[in-house]
Amino acid sequence: MKLLPFYIDDIIERALMEDINYTDAATDYLLDDGMQSKAMLISKDDGVLCGLDFGLRVFEKLDNHINIIKHKNDGGIISKGDLIAEISGSTTTLLKGERTALNIMQHMSGIATKTSRLVKLVEGTKASICDTRKTLPGLRALQKYAVVMGGGRNHRFNLSDAAMLKDNHIDAYGGIIPAVEALREKVGHMIKIEVETRNLDEVRQALKCGAEVIMLDNMDCAAMSEAVKLGAGKALFEASGNVTENNIRQVAETGVDIISVGALTHSVKAFDISMRISKD
Amino acid sequence: MKLLPFYIDDIIERALMEDINYTDAATDYLLDDGMQSKAMLISKDDGVLCGLDFGLRVFEKLDNHINIIKHKNDGGIISKGDLIAEISGSTTTLLKGERTALNIMQHMSGIATKTSRLVKLVEGTKASICDTRKTLPGLRALQKYAVVMGGGRNHRFNLSDAAMLKDNHIDAYGGIIPAVEALREKVGHMIKIEVETRNLDEVRQALKCGAEVIMLDNMDCAAMSEAVKLGAGKALFEASGNVTENNIRQVAETGVDIISVGALTHSVKAFDISMRISKD
Amino acid sequence: MKLLPFYIDDIIERALMEDINYTDAATDYLLDDGMQSKAMLISKDDGVLCGLDFGLRVFEKLDNHINIIKHKNDGGIISKGDLIAEISGSTTTLLKGERTALNIMQHMSGIATKTSRLVKLVEGTKASICDTRKTLPGLRALQKYAVVMGGGRNHRFNLSDAAMLKDNHIDAYGGIIPAVEALREKVGHMIKIEVETRNLDEVRQALKCGAEVIMLDNMDCAAMSEAVKLGAGKALFEASGNVTENNIRQVAETGVDIISVGALTHSVKAFDISMRISKD
Amino acid sequence: MKLLPFYIDDIIERALMEDINYTDAATDYLLDDGMQSKAMLISKDDGVLCGLDFGLRVFEKLDNHINIIKHKNDGGIISKGDLIAEISGSTTTLLKGERTALNIMQHMSGIATKTSRLVKLVEGTKASICDTRKTLPGLRALQKYAVVMGGGRNHRFNLSDAAMLKDNHIDAYGGIIPAVEALREKVGHMIKIEVETRNLDEVRQALKCGAEVIMLDNMDCAAMSEAVKLGAGKALFEASGNVTENNIRQVAETGVDIISVGALTHSVKAFDISMRISKD
Amino acid sequence: MKLLPFYIDDIIERALMEDINYTDAATDYLLDDGMQSKAMLISKDDGVLCGLDFGLRVFEKLDNHINIIKHKNDGGIISKGDLIAEISGSTTTLLKGERTALNIMQHMSGIATKTSRLVKLVEGTKASICDTRKTLPGLRALQKYAVVMGGGRNHRFNLSDAAMLKDNHIDAYGGIIPAVEALREKVGHMIKIEVETRNLDEVRQALKCGAEVIMLDNMDCAAMSEAVKLGAGKALFEASGNVTENNIRQVAETGVDIISVGALTHSVKAFDISMRISKD
Amino acid sequence: MKLLPFYIDDIIERALMEDINYTDAATDYLLDDGMQSKAMLISKDDGVLCGLDFGLRVFEKLDNHINIIKHKNDGGIISKGDLIAEISGSTTTLLKGERTALNIMQHMSGIATKTSRLVKLVEGTKASICDTRKTLPGLRALQKYAVVMGGGRNHRFNLSDAAMLKDNHIDAYGGIIPAVEALREKVGHMIKIEVETRNLDEVRQALKCGAEVIMLDNMDCAAMSEAVKLGAGKALFEASGNVTENNIRQVAETGVDIISVGALTHSVKAFDISMRISKD
Repeated sequence: MKLLPFYIDDIIERALMEDINYTDAATDYLLDDGMQSKAMLISKDDGVLCGLDFGLRVFEKLDNHINIIKHKNDGGIISKGDLIAEISGSTTTLLKGERTALNIMQHMSGIATKTSRLVKLVEGTKASICDTRKTLPGLRALQKYAVVMGGGRNHRFNLSDAAMLKDNHIDAYGGIIPAVEALREKVGHMIKIEVETRNLDEVRQALKCGAEVIMLDNMDCAAMSEAVKLGAGKALFEASGNVTENNIRQVAETGVDIISVGALTHSVKAFDISMRISKD
Repeated sequence: MKLLPFYIDDIIERALMEDINYTDAATDYLLDDGMQSKAMLISKDDGVLCGLDFGLRVFEKLDNHINIIKHKNDGGIISKGDLIAEISGSTTTLLKGERTALNIMQHMSGIATKTSRLVKLVEGTKASICDTRKTLPGLRALQKYAVVMGGGRNHRFNLSDAAMLKDNHIDAYGGIIPAVEALREKVGHMIKIEVETRNLDEVRQALKCGAEVIMLDNMDCAAMSEAVKLGAGKALFEASGNVTENNIRQVAETGVDIISVGALTHSVKAFDISMRISKD
Repeated sequence: MKLLPFYIDDIIERALMEDINYTDAATDYLLDDGMQSKAMLISKDDGVLCGLDFGLRVFEKLDNHINIIKHKNDGGIISKGDLIAEISGSTTTLLKGERTALNIMQHMSGIATKTSRLVKLVEGTKASICDTRKTLPGLRALQKYAVVMGGGRNHRFNLSDAAMLKDNHIDAYGGIIPAVEALREKVGHMIKIEVETRNLDEVRQALKCGAEVIMLDNMDCAAMSEAVKLGAGKALFEASGNVTENNIRQVAETGVDIISVGALTHSVKAFDISMRISKD
Repeated sequence: MKLLPFYIDDIIERALMEDINYTDAATDYLLDDGMQSKAMLISKDDGVLCGLDFGLRVFEKLDNHINIIKHKNDGGIISKGDLIAEISGSTTTLLKGERTALNIMQHMSGIATKTSRLVKLVEGTKASICDTRKTLPGLRALQKYAVVMGGGRNHRFNLSDAAMLKDNHIDAYGGIIPAVEALREKVGHMIKIEVETRNLDEVRQALKCGAEVIMLDNMDCAAMSEAVKLGAGKALFEASGNVTENNIRQVAETGVDIISVGALTHSVKAFDISMRISKD
Repeated sequence: MKLLPFYIDDIIERALMEDINYTDAATDYLLDDGMQSKAMLISKDDGVLCGLDFGLRVFEKLDNHINIIKHKNDGGIISKGDLIAEISGSTTTLLKGERTALNIMQHMSGIATKTSRLVKLVEGTKASICDTRKTLPGLRALQKYAVVMGGGRNHRFNLSDAAMLKDNHIDAYGGIIPAVEALREKVGHMIKIEVETRNLDEVRQALKCGAEVIMLDNMDCAAMSEAVKLGAGKALFEASGNVTENNIRQVAETGVDIISVGALTHSVKAFDISMRISKD
Repeated sequence: MKLLPFYIDDIIERALMEDINYTDAATDYLLDDGMQSKAMLISKDDGVLCGLDFGLRVFEKLDNHINIIKHKNDGGIISKGDLIAEISGSTTTLLKGERTALNIMQHMSGIATKTSRLVKLVEGTKASICDTRKTLPGLRALQKYAVVMGGGRNHRFNLSDAAMLKDNHIDAYGGIIPAVEALREKVGHMIKIEVETRNLDEVRQALKCGAEVIMLDNMDCAAMSEAVKLGAGKALFEASGNVTENNIRQVAETGVDIISVGALTHSVKAFDISMRISKD
């Protein structure tokens, strides 16, 4: 999986404009442009690396004369003390790019690491871990990429690419079945339809009209197991709501196909990576 | 404090493009554009509200005919169950804007709430809580605004507006004093100079050359108290590194002026807000 | 269905910058800004109107003091001579916006009209008419919206939102079945999988592995009928390739669910609309 | 003639964002990034090639490691079956860029081919074929470039760079002569003035005041011949309105200097080009 | 003459981002958002006003609740002490917008004033004063508009909209005449051709081939008079090079049609305008 | 000091779009793309070079095959006739980039040269020359960089990065001392506070509350000397208002630390540089 290079460049340029504006009030006045150094990116924690190429790209956006040796790759497991990559070039470039590069990699590795932990917790069940639309403004593709690098899967990217029927849609048509049927008449044939359900009766209706995916919204595990049985393989079931590291295994054991976790992207804990710069 | 309206609009437009692309595959096919509803924004937790105007602006960017009644304001304390605002307008607009609006408000309120908790923990000491440059790409101004709304203060916005001398700068000049003096010769007169120190000897050097701010980097509390005494009011002291909710009170009691906390912006826990849409 | 207002504004601004640059070398020098006129948008042909709001928006982007009376709406049938809308305001604004507004409406109405003609040709069959990714750079959402206004449906918007397996994918896995299975293991659960097939054997394989949509690529009608029978409702069939106004009825009568037509968006004939400006 | 590289890049980036968004749901999950292939661009029709460099640039925007061998150039005649170019590189890049590249080349070659056909039809007369401002939003420069590649000439690019006097301008001054004189007093000296005329009387007035170009708007051929005679070389004559492949020769034989054809850019038929990808 | 509103908005947004970034470190912390004031724009010099609407627009971009009373208009003569406009609204908005608004108006009024002075110096001759392509990056339309407001005229806006033949073009064809003839064969019919000449022999050649405009490059007044005589009204003559307020009258009296002055836009002296803010 | 490369690229792209639009109506039709030439940048005046890399970058943005030999650097002294740089490449690229490159370099060298002249005039005093926020829209970083290259220093970049208290702020708090104290309570610790003063009494107040910088606004030299004495090194003094080349030495001799000069950036005289293109 590879994000569009100019999409990444655009995020990096914005971040650098925020972080540098026009000069580095210490570095630009104190260090000679010709001074060379080497920087080592080192993991300060255990987890899954993500965003390495984007972080390294920061230095290239500042300067054409940067040399990079990568020791790890996105999706790879890293442990405290691991050397992730080495960057050689102008000391001023290394100092100016450091913060922006780390901000990107720490956020993305945080997502990948958390995802990977959840994936491990449900190992052996048929459940996949997936993200939601609860992402940070302007960063959705970065965040969804990090979920994949952590071993998770992506829910729909946006409202255009799959249909989710909620209360308001269903009420307007007087029920799940007429709403789904109305939508099928009009929506493109490549669009999957998911229906939010809150109880087994709604699950039955969703199954009846052939919804491809059924979200079990804040149901308890007993109800979810029952729903999965009702489904008998005719639809995919997505567990949603109040999933934590503590209860995720139980949820997975209900037999659901997907467990979606908003916190993967809305409440990210940065993964600690440091950069040590020394004279070359 | 008021962010630039077109800066906010730009963030919202990007977020909506991500979240909608060109249509809402359920709403646009099922609901009549003329259908009207009312949405209530309700707090699901206790904390400090932030980003309300930006969240509400999302609906205005989608539609000119939206009516809003605000019951709370940025920086205000909110409790679980509080009605934050009411939004009336086309049901399709409310459904399309919901996720983007919540994503913004939940992130910003998360920052404000965490900041406010830390501020309370140091109450009665002279320490202020401040942010760092450890922000998410493209969101620095939003995040720094949220820190202020939570009662914190902003560290420098970027590398241009204040100077921080680190190892690499100091080593290039053979010491803190020559480095600070070299910088003073060149840097603009509105730029404050902060020096990173790791021990009391470095603190003494920083004081000697008149650094306006001295960062105490990962020092223990005893050393920080000693540093503050050495300073005798001639410089501001900033405690940095490994500050948690558990030890922040102790750190504050060393007499430092500022405690900077990267986690305020790099590891944000979303604050739960929900939006209930009902027919008007 | 409503496109994002700022997406439309962005297209309009680019078009106006192209068409005006900084001044109108005749109008700005000859006519007084205060002079008022009324413009009538009049259909010069029979078809389906599309892009009206976007065309009218052109004038609002130039000037806040424009009054508009709409007599028709997007998706509505218009005949030669019909009055579509009246626009009152500064003569200079009307003259400057005319070309850009017409360019947008004529292109979109051209697409809607062509789509509508094809839809009519297959009336009574179960076939829907849909578009492809063969769109013009920067105009995909506009064009896909016009297809919907003409009574067609949208195929996937882009490569992210649904999966289409072609030769190259299939060959890499040694066959349709292993390729589809490999994809199912990884791709998000909201993604539909379509498989391109060239003969009935491939159709059988695609059915076997549960592909949701099967493209019948350049098959003759007999083969397509056969394929539909094999499917027995377990997958959707999409006819693709060499469909013209002459043969589309026959194609539809094979029982396929979707007929995708690249020419809807890659070879558009502008629909003639004129604008008459007269002193108010 | 060479368009600005960053103008082209901007169009390509927008087109790729539309067509890919963040991933290719089939390719990115199924094919290894390291897999190499070769793609052959092959003409499926007879005509004039245009947009080749822009189409090829699509692949470079996705990936730095692409090798290209060009067998044809913009403006060159191509026949069904001709190999236009070969592209070697990562299979994933080739598959992701294919649609966007073809969309651009097929549209531009469509314009060049149509232009070239019209140019041939008027061969031997003094008439040039030229475009109009009836272009698609955001694509004017691409389209005007394609007209030149097809052997046509460009009318004015926008309202700033030449002046065209229409009814509304003329009426405001009570006639062609006072309007042209008023304009000459103010407009820049590098601006040519063209006057729209509907009959020989208006042609005489336009000649009298020295209009550099006279548009003969929807006149019949007899009137146009007469107008050209009246002109006696003192102005350029542009035939405009209802020109088709059937009558263009007759129009040209009236002696007009320019025949402008809106359909060149507002009603483009895509020129068929295919891309075959095979393992390297 | 009216520039495109969104072109102006774009310049203003960039300028405000530069000047404010995210907050006003004095105003936002000290003044209550509700505090109201009135600002008076007052001329501190004698000249021609320009950019007023653009300067006032700055405040509207910051805040929807601004009231404006204009006492002057672009192109109007203003004298020291004149009240140009009054702006009422939030004190914080007035303080934040002040610098950006003044920067725009002072630059544009500086250009208009200088232009107007040159226009007056050549009064009674047939010479017009015009600008060049020697403008500041990103500000060409603003600057060319200001020249018109000062009573001058615009030379070509850019390389696309008129042709200027220089040495390098002429040498490639072995002379003025073959170069002009070659260009006429290809260039669009709305493009005027200007030829740079350095002596009377070149003027004769340019006349011979019918160049519409002839630039007299750094010629002395005697030569220019002679050139004008040779022209006998068949071409426009543009004097260029080393024109100052001291010698411009003499240059004009040679009979040239246009005097182009790079300094109008490349060496602008700001026109002094002040803004006084007082409590409402 | 090195500006961000993509910030520069953005300015150059805008400038080239303005100056070229889509073609060069002379060059693109007359010269073969393969024709090679060499251009020499030559100083036509004595001063300080600035913007060379940005000017040269213009050619690279147009064309990848440009070779450059630099003979001078930013901040270097150049004299009339000096060869600044040589550029080899396609003649069409050289001709198309010439104007934009010169416009940038002439403006920036104009600023650097003027700054350098003022710096020389105060040599031997402790005064530094600095710029203001009186810059041209969109060009602030370019202009502030040029001031540094001329030997000056930068005042604050924008309203966010330092606080300046003016009348309106002070009046709202009933005096300098309460206003400064109120601000200190809230503003970030990296923000310096400057107070505008108009007389010695205000200077005394500003000193009392510990303002880091005191602006002496339009004071006479006697008052300024007195202010400096009162300060006794406890604050920096900035002279502002009505500083010219004639009186700047006197101002400097009052002992002020900084003299800020708006004209450095608001009233720039272009520095003359020419480009000679000859066949290679």
